[in-house]
Amino acid sequence: MRVLGVDPGLTRCGVGVVEGAPGRPLRLVAVGVIRTPSGDPLHQRLLTIQTELEDWLHDHDPDAIAVERMFARGDVSTIMGTAQASAIPMLAAARRGLPLALHTPSEVKAAVTGNGRADKAQVTSMVMRVLGLDERPTPADAADALALAICQVWRGGAASRLADAVTDNRTTEALDAARRRQPAAPNRWQQAVAAHRASGGSAHPAVAAARRQAVQRGTAR
Amino acid sequence: MRVLGVDPGLTRCGVGVVEGAPGRPLRLVAVGVIRTPSGDPLHQRLLTIQTELEDWLHDHDPDAIAVERMFARGDVSTIMGTAQASAIPMLAAARRGLPLALHTPSEVKAAVTGNGRADKAQVTSMVMRVLGLDERPTPADAADALALAICQVWRGGAASRLADAVTDNRTTEALDAARRRQPAAPNRWQQAVAAHRASGGSAHPAVAAARRQAVQRGTAR
Repeated sequence: MRVLGVDPGLTRCGVGVVEGAPGRPLRLVAVGVIRTPSGDPLHQRLLTIQTELEDWLHDHDPDAIAVERMFARGDVSTIMGTAQASAIPMLAAARRGLPLALHTPSEVKAAVTGNGRADKAQVTSMVMRVLGLDERPTPADAADALALAICQVWRGGAASRLADAVTDNRTTEALDAARRRQPAAPNRWQQAVAAHRASGGSAHPAVAAARRQAVQRGTAR
Repeated sequence: MRVLGVDPGLTRCGVGVVEGAPGRPLRLVAVGVIRTPSGDPLHQRLLTIQTELEDWLHDHDPDAIAVERMFARGDVSTIMGTAQASAIPMLAAARRGLPLALHTPSEVKAAVTGNGRADKAQVTSMVMRVLGLDERPTPADAADALALAICQVWRGGAASRLADAVTDNRTTEALDAARRRQPAAPNRWQQAVAAHRASGGSAHPAVAAARRQAVQRGTAR
């Protein structure tokens, strides 16, 4: 299964393609960032993102698209442009008949690191570890796009069915509440963490290692 | 000049085409609403809007597109879907190389009724009067789309140049502030209102008539 993850944004739109299956090693296919000049008119910037995203779809032919789910909160000054940009991968999925999954940032963090409140350094470290990368994907938007794609491969069918049920942005919080009431089966990573904790470990060794690296880099304590 | 006005929305997306020039009578070409079922997945709804909007563009071949400018305020529960829907006419304009104008609701009201705080009934009455319609365009989204198109024909070049300068949603308030500092030349309607007021009238007769009608219908006082 090949998933295109998109972290939407007008100035930097992260794009990452990952191939694999739950329980098997994942492979990085491609990663990058679509940038649009802040001096261009808004509609031209949207078209630039659409044109480049079509190239990504043509070049890598994914089986599914995963997009960060938009909330109407956060930085109000940029949220409208981000929402407009998020429509582009959604339209692309609908036009090609590809399954579309929408994941919140905390879902992605939980799937990739086992912790829904992980910081950016932890997510990036786990993305590198999971995909066997020697170099850190930069900027952060590129790493976030890969994390979205990894999340979709691992959450797989269950998340896709949930996405199909998403009929409106308004249902997001209702869905999240439903998920909390009836948690999804733990993923491969969560199972490993649980097993390690059950055997007396305070945190999964990979998480501890990632945290040590982050502390060495000064990005976490 | 033929302008397609779009009042974006997921459930009802108003669409109206108007033909004319500043200082000459305007003509209604077509008006309608693109509806998408609230039970459809979000990305399918966006694709439905895109597909139907492409039909409107093909059928009516406008010279410019006017879209309601999005603000990151108002009803938070629907704003994300509206923002995503607004990307569709913007992408269409960019792809076809058509001028795109973004107008705030108060700009539209001011252009069409002479009053930036006019209520919906006043806007609809003036749209009917300007276009010589016997029947009220319904629903409100259809009338709003026509008002956007009328606003663009009347504001014409000045507004288009402003829209070209819009590089980001964030610049909206700065642009509005700039407009307040250096007001645009009054349009045909504002000139008529000013002339009427200068001659001793308390309000333009057409506005007064529209208000009387609204009061009779119980939609205004």
